Amino acid sequence: MPQIVVVMGSDADLPALEPAFAVLRSFPITWEARVISAHRTPDAALEFARGAGGDGVQVIIAAAGKAAHLAGVLAACTTLPVIGIPLSSPGLDGLDALLATVQMPSGVPVATVGIDSAKNAALLALQIVGLQSQPVMVRLVEERQHMADEVGRKDDTIRKHYHSVSKAEQGGPA
Amino acid sequence: MPQIVVVMGSDADLPALEPAFAVLRSFPITWEARVISAHRTPDAALEFARGAGGDGVQVIIAAAGKAAHLAGVLAACTTLPVIGIPLSSPGLDGLDALLATVQMPSGVPVATVGIDSAKNAALLALQIVGLQSQPVMVRLVEERQHMADEVGRKDDTIRKHYHSVSKAEQGGPA
Amino acid sequence: MPQIVVVMGSDADLPALEPAFAVLRSFPITWEARVISAHRTPDAALEFARGAGGDGVQVIIAAAGKAAHLAGVLAACTTLPVIGIPLSSPGLDGLDALLATVQMPSGVPVATVGIDSAKNAALLALQIVGLQSQPVMVRLVEERQHMADEVGRKDDTIRKHYHSVSKAEQGGPA
Amino acid sequence: MPQIVVVMGSDADLPALEPAFAVLRSFPITWEARVISAHRTPDAALEFARGAGGDGVQVIIAAAGKAAHLAGVLAACTTLPVIGIPLSSPGLDGLDALLATVQMPSGVPVATVGIDSAKNAALLALQIVGLQSQPVMVRLVEERQHMADEVGRKDDTIRKHYHSVSKAEQGGPA
Amino acid sequence: MPQIVVVMGSDADLPALEPAFAVLRSFPITWEARVISAHRTPDAALEFARGAGGDGVQVIIAAAGKAAHLAGVLAACTTLPVIGIPLSSPGLDGLDALLATVQMPSGVPVATVGIDSAKNAALLALQIVGLQSQPVMVRLVEERQHMADEVGRKDDTIRKHYHSVSKAEQGGPA
Amino acid sequence: MPQIVVVMGSDADLPALEPAFAVLRSFPITWEARVISAHRTPDAALEFARGAGGDGVQVIIAAAGKAAHLAGVLAACTTLPVIGIPLSSPGLDGLDALLATVQMPSGVPVATVGIDSAKNAALLALQIVGLQSQPVMVRLVEERQHMADEVGRKDDTIRKHYHSVSKAEQGGPA
Amino acid sequence: MPQIVVVMGSDADLPALEPAFAVLRSFPITWEARVISAHRTPDAALEFARGAGGDGVQVIIAAAGKAAHLAGVLAACTTLPVIGIPLSSPGLDGLDALLATVQMPSGVPVATVGIDSAKNAALLALQIVGLQSQPVMVRLVEERQHMADEVGRKDDTIRKHYHSVSKAEQGGPA
Amino acid sequence: MPQIVVVMGSDADLPALEPAFAVLRSFPITWEARVISAHRTPDAALEFARGAGGDGVQVIIAAAGKAAHLAGVLAACTTLPVIGIPLSSPGLDGLDALLATVQMPSGVPVATVGIDSAKNAALLALQIVGLQSQPVMVRLVEERQHMADEVGRKDDTIRKHYHSVSKAEQGGPA
Repeated sequence: MPQIVVVMGSDADLPALEPAFAVLRSFPITWEARVISAHRTPDAALEFARGAGGDGVQVIIAAAGKAAHLAGVLAACTTLPVIGIPLSSPGLDGLDALLATVQMPSGVPVATVGIDSAKNAALLALQIVGLQSQPVMVRLVEERQHMADEVGRKDDTIRKHYHSVSKAEQGGPA
Repeated sequence: MPQIVVVMGSDADLPALEPAFAVLRSFPITWEARVISAHRTPDAALEFARGAGGDGVQVIIAAAGKAAHLAGVLAACTTLPVIGIPLSSPGLDGLDALLATVQMPSGVPVATVGIDSAKNAALLALQIVGLQSQPVMVRLVEERQHMADEVGRKDDTIRKHYHSVSKAEQGGPA
Repeated sequence: MPQIVVVMGSDADLPALEPAFAVLRSFPITWEARVISAHRTPDAALEFARGAGGDGVQVIIAAAGKAAHLAGVLAACTTLPVIGIPLSSPGLDGLDALLATVQMPSGVPVATVGIDSAKNAALLALQIVGLQSQPVMVRLVEERQHMADEVGRKDDTIRKHYHSVSKAEQGGPA
Repeated sequence: MPQIVVVMGSDADLPALEPAFAVLRSFPITWEARVISAHRTPDAALEFARGAGGDGVQVIIAAAGKAAHLAGVLAACTTLPVIGIPLSSPGLDGLDALLATVQMPSGVPVATVGIDSAKNAALLALQIVGLQSQPVMVRLVEERQHMADEVGRKDDTIRKHYHSVSKAEQGGPA
Repeated sequence: MPQIVVVMGSDADLPALEPAFAVLRSFPITWEARVISAHRTPDAALEFARGAGGDGVQVIIAAAGKAAHLAGVLAACTTLPVIGIPLSSPGLDGLDALLATVQMPSGVPVATVGIDSAKNAALLALQIVGLQSQPVMVRLVEERQHMADEVGRKDDTIRKHYHSVSKAEQGGPA
Repeated sequence: MPQIVVVMGSDADLPALEPAFAVLRSFPITWEARVISAHRTPDAALEFARGAGGDGVQVIIAAAGKAAHLAGVLAACTTLPVIGIPLSSPGLDGLDALLATVQMPSGVPVATVGIDSAKNAALLALQIVGLQSQPVMVRLVEERQHMADEVGRKDDTIRKHYHSVSKAEQGGPA
Repeated sequence: MPQIVVVMGSDADLPALEPAFAVLRSFPITWEARVISAHRTPDAALEFARGAGGDGVQVIIAAAGKAAHLAGVLAACTTLPVIGIPLSSPGLDGLDALLATVQMPSGVPVATVGIDSAKNAALLALQIVGLQSQPVMVRLVEERQHMADEVGRKDDTIRKHYHSVSKAEQGGPA
Repeated sequence: MPQIVVVMGSDADLPALEPAFAVLRSFPITWEARVISAHRTPDAALEFARGAGGDGVQVIIAAAGKAAHLAGVLAACTTLPVIGIPLSSPGLDGLDALLATVQMPSGVPVATVGIDSAKNAALLALQIVGLQSQPVMVRLVEERQHMADEVGRKDDTIRKHYHSVSKAEQGGPA
């Protein structure tokens, strides 16, 4: 039984979710991706959300665009944490999806990440799963350290190449 | 069986819907108001929308605020026309509800009216019902004529009071 | 006499409306497309809207961009349901057209669909026509079932390919 | 025959237009206010705009809120300059009216002023009328000089009261 | 040691957070509120976030307005889940706080709830804590059932009072 | 002496203004284009605006993007009508320029046209000049008639090609 | 000669600027407030900005609302740092003023602070003046320490009053 | 020790900052670029900002996108002037970064320039440094004069090519 399930409203959203899959693949957890539509298969949506907790799922990630109801509909049918990824579309750059995902009514929260932030959704799910899994938490800490080291290395490189030159050279090309 | 059902997500929305009820009360049709929440009673929402067509309902009006999913969730479960009223809330003046109601995915339309436009939602429902009911259509035409007459009367009044005065009086109070 | 008339403000809007035509072509109804401009041919707009009801038209679809007045102007001259499609343009991504279409004054509703949602406008028109036509309603239900089946098939495919691998393989490519 | 006609969609807009009337009353021109609705009395709107030029009207000012079509509809039926005042309403603070007024299609311009800027609309109309009327132009120049003088006087007052005090007093109340 | 810590940038935010405290008080968990400012006490912010995991904290809730950096700064220093509440302020209705909270860079997620949605933030925190606490999860399910029952009761009341009257009475007051 | 002067803040704006020049070239008026920057050559801006009225200029058109001050700065120094064209730029699609152009303080109006609506700015200028020039007004009326005819012709074409086919053919390609 | 000059477009802006004056009064610097309007007294604006550097002014603060051109016009006429305060107005909550202040064209920067952030504008001016004045810099550091201490004290108070109660009391009022 | 330090959150921002480097290279000052992330290397951010003043840095420029916290976090740890450059990203065109940079809480200002306005950030930093450096101020004045001359030259060219032709030629191509 997967600990994390990633639900998308349409398989057209697959490319947008690849960064999430890449993260999930590199952690010692079980996960699965699904295509379930709040508007085209509402029954499947309710059935899945209703059963998820009993099936051992710990976190649901739901990605949708425009009037993005998917995360909210799933959240309405489970007390598991539901993470919403608002997906951008040509129309309004994802502002519609962001508002439709995050502005949930009182009583039914959705943990919303940034527009198209699939990678962050996966990391947030792992941070929740990691509360009960030492190996996951250790990997998350390593990942953060890795990010910091990379920034540090880039800082060294940039400082070497981007700065004012000595008085003598001033005015010439850097 | 009501021809038009007005669904609100919370009874706190009653005042915002009064203009719709006022219109509906003055037409020769059957109607009913309901409180059904997409997020708090998703089963009731699906059950209602599924059965509405068979029960003789012709048009559904759904009003909700913020991440307004109600109209979309109902529209997903029926092929009856569903009219969505985005309700404003302190946060974002109803822009969130407007986008969450109108930006539906391909395949499941919601007939969206303006923010807090309960009266227009009722009139739109009646325009649809009126396609099959001569008395309703006649009343709608009368209503329009009434509106036009009222504007005409106001035009007469305003013209009398708001205009430049004759040369002699110029500079004095109009 | 067409049951549904699709009006566009300019023939430059034809490509944006193709998805509507594709839907309309596949249903047992009569329809027609027109080019009428609220600003360039206001008389033609009023004349068409005035006469539409008497000519047997049941629903009008109006598509326009920017300060999109077309749907509103037509709605002002008929009690038939008028569906507005706000079209996006480079400037403001269609937000201008959406607000100019949906925010109608009290008394004259426009049934607004999402930005560039031509297909949904056609489906909404058919849902209204379907109230009086069993064959149309049957086709709409089939169409919904078809959408649901397609989502179900995609769900099966995605689940097979996107999930965590067994312990042994962990770390390798999925 | 009035040189400037101020058209409002509803007499509820009267208070918002008072600043325009105040300006118009103080200039040597003829003017008149009208209530004509693009949506409730479309025929009256077209008839007025069609005849305005022949009746000696030089500039039309049109004020409307929400999906503000009034200025655009009038502009479609005349080659006189039409000035649009977008009026704010509780919903979206007038952004809807601004976009619906200013984003006109190619070929039919509306000279848009700021949201609720009735006074500026009147002044703009006078600047246009003033091209043919020396007395109007002279008054406009005087008005500008008056504004500048007033700012100058206020500058003198403010400078006297709002500044740092001498070293000795530093820390005490200014 | 508290399982959930609610951090606010200023004690002026206390009233906005009361709904969160009300929820937390009614669940069998340990919690605490703090005032820590990302901009006024950055060291305290880092120190708290760094130590929270080791101190047994499971979830951090951070509330801030305007350029709301608090949740992001805390999230940068811990791998615990951080829930962000964007608080509205007179300026831009909380849109600034929403974007500053939710649009986090890749690698450091913040679980964002709606503008001023303190209650939902508390519930989301409890849903996460509930993954490891049967009593909390049971209470969450009861709470959902309670909400559903309340909607059901209101539905019964509204249906009784808001509907069309019988043919005979038609036209009279409902 | 030109009757209409088109001022742009930078020669990079030339392509955006070509539609205005095309219109101006086809009318019996005198005109000229200038490059004057409110921010880079403020003195030239004031000097030009101050002298324009005396030099026989009747209308000024000013085009600028982003924090578009050009039209406002010119309008501050003349009582001639000043038409502002907000130009879009990659950043915010011209919303910044629109607000910076149209939201003028009380006392100094700018006649604002739509974002990038150079053609409409030229037509508006001609409508103002046309109040004193019969040949210009006649051309404007012809232009409107020409637009209407073109829409009429397109309507004929579209109606022929876009409509439902006869019963027998139904389901086949239109 | 004042080191810092605060310019407002109208004396109606005085209340909005009081927080700036309060800060300036408490620092060992010279300052002055002025009323100069970019649109009503453009000459005074240019003259002031031109002469400011020679008069010993080090920083200019300019506050304006709506199409806020004041800071930009001043910045165009001096190479002193100009700080812009976008002031909110009923219309669009200051978004218009923010964009009109911050989105300056290349070559003429304005150092923009938040909407209505008069206090921050004063502090920013002092941070610039402080680069050359040890007493000012010392005061700024003290001010920051004072803010941090105050947050610390509030943190102590809040922690005492807002937290879960012991097991025994659970369920009772905190 | 550099007088100006340009900090970016990621080396992916290098191209967006090139216009700033180009300006800095042409002035007689010392400068340096750094990669420091508010979210990935918060300690490095605090350490840098804390030490900058003592190290002789006079102005910090910080560039970041989306929920742009970098400038604010640095500003929280220094009383040096911090200039923020909001960087655009595909999502919301930089509106998120603008609001997250400029809407700082009371007490900690960030001097914000326009979206992606790296060149203006560099010029603003130089205007501040120039208060203590005559050579820098002289160069800034020259730069302004150069800009003005360039606009003047372009004005001459455009006037020659874009204007109405003589009566005889009227109607032919310009």
